[in-house]
Amino acid sequence: MYGKAAVLVEKNRLETWDVEVHAPEPGGALVRTILGGVCGSDVHILTGEAGEMPFPIILGHEGVGEITQLGAGVSTDYAGVPVKAGDLVIWSPIALCHRCYSCTVLEQTPCENSQYFEDAAKPNWGSYADYAWLPNNMPFYRLPDGAQPEAIAALGCALPTVLRGFDRCGPVRFGDSVVVQGAGPVGLSAVLVAAQAGAREIIVIDGAQARLEAAMTLGATATVSLSLAPDERKRMIYDRIGKQGPDIVIEAAGALPAFPEGVDISGIHSRYIILGLWGAIGTQPISPRDLTLKNLTIGGASFPAPKNYYQGMQFAARVQNQVPLAALVSHRFGIGQAAEALTVTKNGVATKAVIDPTIS
Amino acid sequence: MYGKAAVLVEKNRLETWDVEVHAPEPGGALVRTILGGVCGSDVHILTGEAGEMPFPIILGHEGVGEITQLGAGVSTDYAGVPVKAGDLVIWSPIALCHRCYSCTVLEQTPCENSQYFEDAAKPNWGSYADYAWLPNNMPFYRLPDGAQPEAIAALGCALPTVLRGFDRCGPVRFGDSVVVQGAGPVGLSAVLVAAQAGAREIIVIDGAQARLEAAMTLGATATVSLSLAPDERKRMIYDRIGKQGPDIVIEAAGALPAFPEGVDISGIHSRYIILGLWGAIGTQPISPRDLTLKNLTIGGASFPAPKNYYQGMQFAARVQNQVPLAALVSHRFGIGQAAEALTVTKNGVATKAVIDPTIS
Amino acid sequence: MYGKAAVLVEKNRLETWDVEVHAPEPGGALVRTILGGVCGSDVHILTGEAGEMPFPIILGHEGVGEITQLGAGVSTDYAGVPVKAGDLVIWSPIALCHRCYSCTVLEQTPCENSQYFEDAAKPNWGSYADYAWLPNNMPFYRLPDGAQPEAIAALGCALPTVLRGFDRCGPVRFGDSVVVQGAGPVGLSAVLVAAQAGAREIIVIDGAQARLEAAMTLGATATVSLSLAPDERKRMIYDRIGKQGPDIVIEAAGALPAFPEGVDISGIHSRYIILGLWGAIGTQPISPRDLTLKNLTIGGASFPAPKNYYQGMQFAARVQNQVPLAALVSHRFGIGQAAEALTVTKNGVATKAVIDPTIS
Amino acid sequence: MYGKAAVLVEKNRLETWDVEVHAPEPGGALVRTILGGVCGSDVHILTGEAGEMPFPIILGHEGVGEITQLGAGVSTDYAGVPVKAGDLVIWSPIALCHRCYSCTVLEQTPCENSQYFEDAAKPNWGSYADYAWLPNNMPFYRLPDGAQPEAIAALGCALPTVLRGFDRCGPVRFGDSVVVQGAGPVGLSAVLVAAQAGAREIIVIDGAQARLEAAMTLGATATVSLSLAPDERKRMIYDRIGKQGPDIVIEAAGALPAFPEGVDISGIHSRYIILGLWGAIGTQPISPRDLTLKNLTIGGASFPAPKNYYQGMQFAARVQNQVPLAALVSHRFGIGQAAEALTVTKNGVATKAVIDPTIS
Repeated sequence: MYGKAAVLVEKNRLETWDVEVHAPEPGGALVRTILGGVCGSDVHILTGEAGEMPFPIILGHEGVGEITQLGAGVSTDYAGVPVKAGDLVIWSPIALCHRCYSCTVLEQTPCENSQYFEDAAKPNWGSYADYAWLPNNMPFYRLPDGAQPEAIAALGCALPTVLRGFDRCGPVRFGDSVVVQGAGPVGLSAVLVAAQAGAREIIVIDGAQARLEAAMTLGATATVSLSLAPDERKRMIYDRIGKQGPDIVIEAAGALPAFPEGVDISGIHSRYIILGLWGAIGTQPISPRDLTLKNLTIGGASFPAPKNYYQGMQFAARVQNQVPLAALVSHRFGIGQAAEALTVTKNGVATKAVIDPTIS
Repeated sequence: MYGKAAVLVEKNRLETWDVEVHAPEPGGALVRTILGGVCGSDVHILTGEAGEMPFPIILGHEGVGEITQLGAGVSTDYAGVPVKAGDLVIWSPIALCHRCYSCTVLEQTPCENSQYFEDAAKPNWGSYADYAWLPNNMPFYRLPDGAQPEAIAALGCALPTVLRGFDRCGPVRFGDSVVVQGAGPVGLSAVLVAAQAGAREIIVIDGAQARLEAAMTLGATATVSLSLAPDERKRMIYDRIGKQGPDIVIEAAGALPAFPEGVDISGIHSRYIILGLWGAIGTQPISPRDLTLKNLTIGGASFPAPKNYYQGMQFAARVQNQVPLAALVSHRFGIGQAAEALTVTKNGVATKAVIDPTIS
Repeated sequence: MYGKAAVLVEKNRLETWDVEVHAPEPGGALVRTILGGVCGSDVHILTGEAGEMPFPIILGHEGVGEITQLGAGVSTDYAGVPVKAGDLVIWSPIALCHRCYSCTVLEQTPCENSQYFEDAAKPNWGSYADYAWLPNNMPFYRLPDGAQPEAIAALGCALPTVLRGFDRCGPVRFGDSVVVQGAGPVGLSAVLVAAQAGAREIIVIDGAQARLEAAMTLGATATVSLSLAPDERKRMIYDRIGKQGPDIVIEAAGALPAFPEGVDISGIHSRYIILGLWGAIGTQPISPRDLTLKNLTIGGASFPAPKNYYQGMQFAARVQNQVPLAALVSHRFGIGQAAEALTVTKNGVATKAVIDPTIS
Repeated sequence: MYGKAAVLVEKNRLETWDVEVHAPEPGGALVRTILGGVCGSDVHILTGEAGEMPFPIILGHEGVGEITQLGAGVSTDYAGVPVKAGDLVIWSPIALCHRCYSCTVLEQTPCENSQYFEDAAKPNWGSYADYAWLPNNMPFYRLPDGAQPEAIAALGCALPTVLRGFDRCGPVRFGDSVVVQGAGPVGLSAVLVAAQAGAREIIVIDGAQARLEAAMTLGATATVSLSLAPDERKRMIYDRIGKQGPDIVIEAAGALPAFPEGVDISGIHSRYIILGLWGAIGTQPISPRDLTLKNLTIGGASFPAPKNYYQGMQFAARVQNQVPLAALVSHRFGIGQAAEALTVTKNGVATKAVIDPTIS
């Protein structure tokens, strides 16, 4: 059997291939892709900003799919939930080695030997494709009954990334005041998590009105336009929160100038959490004394762990009827239209674009 | 009754005054100073780098003393240990308000209304003086039986600061590899804590051979000279630790160039903890993407909480017979020689200088 | 000026007194009580099960009030928010000493010298009264704009207690499965917190249908009736959650038999959090091996810290429009009817009773 | 090739077998056993108290060995350290599945599918044998240069178990006061960890004078004899520590009556950590109200994670020259004398017994 796949043959060269669909290996699973999320990182992979890649690769590290066939010995998902053909699942797309310092001593992802992509000519878990072939030991999780694939796909790997960030840097506490720089999927995920976690203020900075409005639907308490001067932005934030400043600032803009601004607006005894940033190459001037005088912690996080995917899926399923999650999916493209999907993601037109293999 | 005190009348103008010795207020205590520690911050206060001060002030925020008289209602120290005149104590020199966001919601020090110094003409807890008058609600703790005042004074507020840093940014875990930038009191405290906590490697960078030797006596496993090129320093560190790099890097150099070097040498999933830095004014170029790709956390910490003083005192008392703590006190000066004490601290001649009021 | 107060003169002897209303002391505040929450603990104080009390005392440790007058030097609440007469506030009703081991080293409440009640003849912060006189250093917090006093009062000190429990024993994580024993105010608070925190299952056990229905309105995913046999209850819980069992069990029933049942139903690597229990005097047989084989942690918590009151208030204000919080207040009584308020609380008729001083 | 192995054929029936020595599988390793630790759990496995076992099994879950041959693809240990034949290693003897709820969501050991033993007729990692065959994915770690095998073996899996306990229940903080019930390998490990971590008091309760003396060599500050009445034991502990009581109590006695005594002596806001307990079958009466009134947390822990083995090994290597670790190995037996090794372990004659395959 063959299926379609969007293959990045080399930097900036995307093709649609017919690839063989393989039966699952023992311990693995074959999944028919329902939605493949388009992530900002995909754009950076396309352009080469994300570094060397083992070309040719099938793009797509966010997916919701339906189990077609289970490998020998598989009867449950990786949370112990019984599964069978026809069940909906997500998967954690990073193959871990379970035999390095990060895996066995630090218990952190990614590990020294993480594999993100597989050769497009081989069995492959990229989600811009009709089928994803999940190798043995690649965690997948069954969607809870009633979960909407669009609601799970809407925030893609951004939501697990945000959960990982709070995991590493400490959670939002009830009553915390939070500032979010950028209202793309990462920023919107941060807003949603902070809102549910009981933050008292969630102030979002972005330049696009539509994104700010989306943030308000997820629980933001105020928005600040990037069109204002930085000093004015800071003043508005401090007027709302008080002189102690925000307890948490989230960098989800992926823009270099946001970094020193984030350090500047961070409050006393606060945390500044930087997520993603694949495209923001370069340095910014920072005063280390700002960190000690404010008792400020700056934490970076990327590459969610399997648990973060599980948690994000459960969380999205839990809130899908309270907030308009599925509605964040603004654009759908077939596998052969992957280039367009990347374009609307790159230029910020899409709140969230997805690959839908049923579109031709 | 009158006693001597070293008073900073204004920036760079130090005088010796005869000041009135007041009876303790209810809830307070009067303490005869045995040793007043000279801290690098005192130098920055002297020069004005530490910012505005409520001059005139009695210098000295590190002290070991003997209780002369207890205020009405006081029969124990702030850990519940019975006390009486003649007992040796240390005190936590920051007066907290117990009524602000930091005090009551964040439970973090310093608070928005912290008072570090009192007018030299008023009852005063500065330790460059014959007597320290501890106001009601200023925590003091009795030294454990057998504790040597020099061992407690040797690391001064550096040890509580290090404990606070690990409190905020997570502790040294058994088997961690640690790099310490700078082997002054803060760096030496970090070495000692890491060694006791079971770090497998503790590599110290400094330019002074005597300091590096002191670090080895406290548990460092290797030293790296600042005279080497940064690339060579990094190579030596990675050769010892392995390709994952250090789990923890401590900035205790108080020098601006150490900051980007620290970010650079920090390992995957690691923490970079920045302590003190009063004198390192200015910015350095940092790449925020380094934080996300390494899952790096950078945490600043200063101004220990009362518990950190208590913990530091207990810890120093515990290890004083295993490591040559008291021997770190390299210079002693009378109150009238405070300017000299600050000079040997500023120019790095002293490992640790103290004010000893019995010297005239 | 005089006001009314419900005074517990001795065990089981409640009277209505006219007590003098005092001007606030410096640092304090005088607050007109709007709602005084009736807590299950008040019943145990009435009956003597809660131990010795400094009779006569004004009952009531939960309150929402309006600032009548601020003491000298007070211009903000204890979170730094500007306040003035007429503002609505809550207060943390335990006077801490700030000078003991719990206060300064452990940073935990209650402290060794905590004062819960003051002599009814003296200025007094009990909330079953027209006025609450808040001493200097008793934290109070201004309600956020738009907060409904009933929504804040509905869960009373139960919500801060639950927050304290999660603070000590670790938070609800996204995707956790939670079982709550008992659906009184503590259990309902646990349901609400778990629901907002993104638990995937929240299963509530209680004997009263009305309470179970209230739990469903706050986010429970299933209920189990106490009328079923324990084995059947366990089977139902495990059928929903899976063989690993609940990640968190909350003891909010205040009934002795719930204790061994809670240990039994706790899942692997799970936490069992026991809250309150003033009335459950006695022992139960527990197997310590159950703890090691399941890697189970059992944590008790009571006496919230000031931050927990602040967090609970912010959280209640945040969710008051999403869930029917205010509707949980089922009974209102005047100060002179305090005995009836305690009766409906004791016999479980009330979901939540409050004292409303405007009722005569 | 064949080697000797001590095989438990069924409950209470131990035999010496000649078993085939297999070449390592890809990803695995073949290790010649140098020391196989004899653990109290082995006694409970022998007697059947530890539950059903997949007989016949090769006993021994503690081992130090020398790499004989590495499986295909293996060039480093599981911490990234290069390895070759002849290097000394330890291994984490529980085979994890990497595909269950505990492995991928909770990140806790043991997992739902953990395999502790393998059929004695198959390639096998039991350490009462000439060779241990480590399957692919079973973590092993190279001993640091200079580490003494006896020092690593002396505390066996007790030290990783203690590290796991502090990992789950929070670490020893500088200045904590600690009580340890029982001075076998688990208790001694707790003493050693607490001492290094800077506890101010470490009080050990045991009935055997030799064990109490060993505890003193590892850092205990006082001992209490089991021969005293419980009330007297408590009084002695509180006299030393103060009225707040111990911050941490460790159950390492494995005796049922220790459980209620531990709850009773636990201080305010404290932790009671229960480790092991394989043999203590039965219940004890506990008052749940004791947990809430003291804000007490009781945490059980067993089955260390790979990281705990790594950390324990590094820690032992670090302190082997400061404390007489290797000297704790009191008895050595050949493989054919395993029954005697278990007897001296069961009856408490041995501080630590080991299997040394070179003894015949």
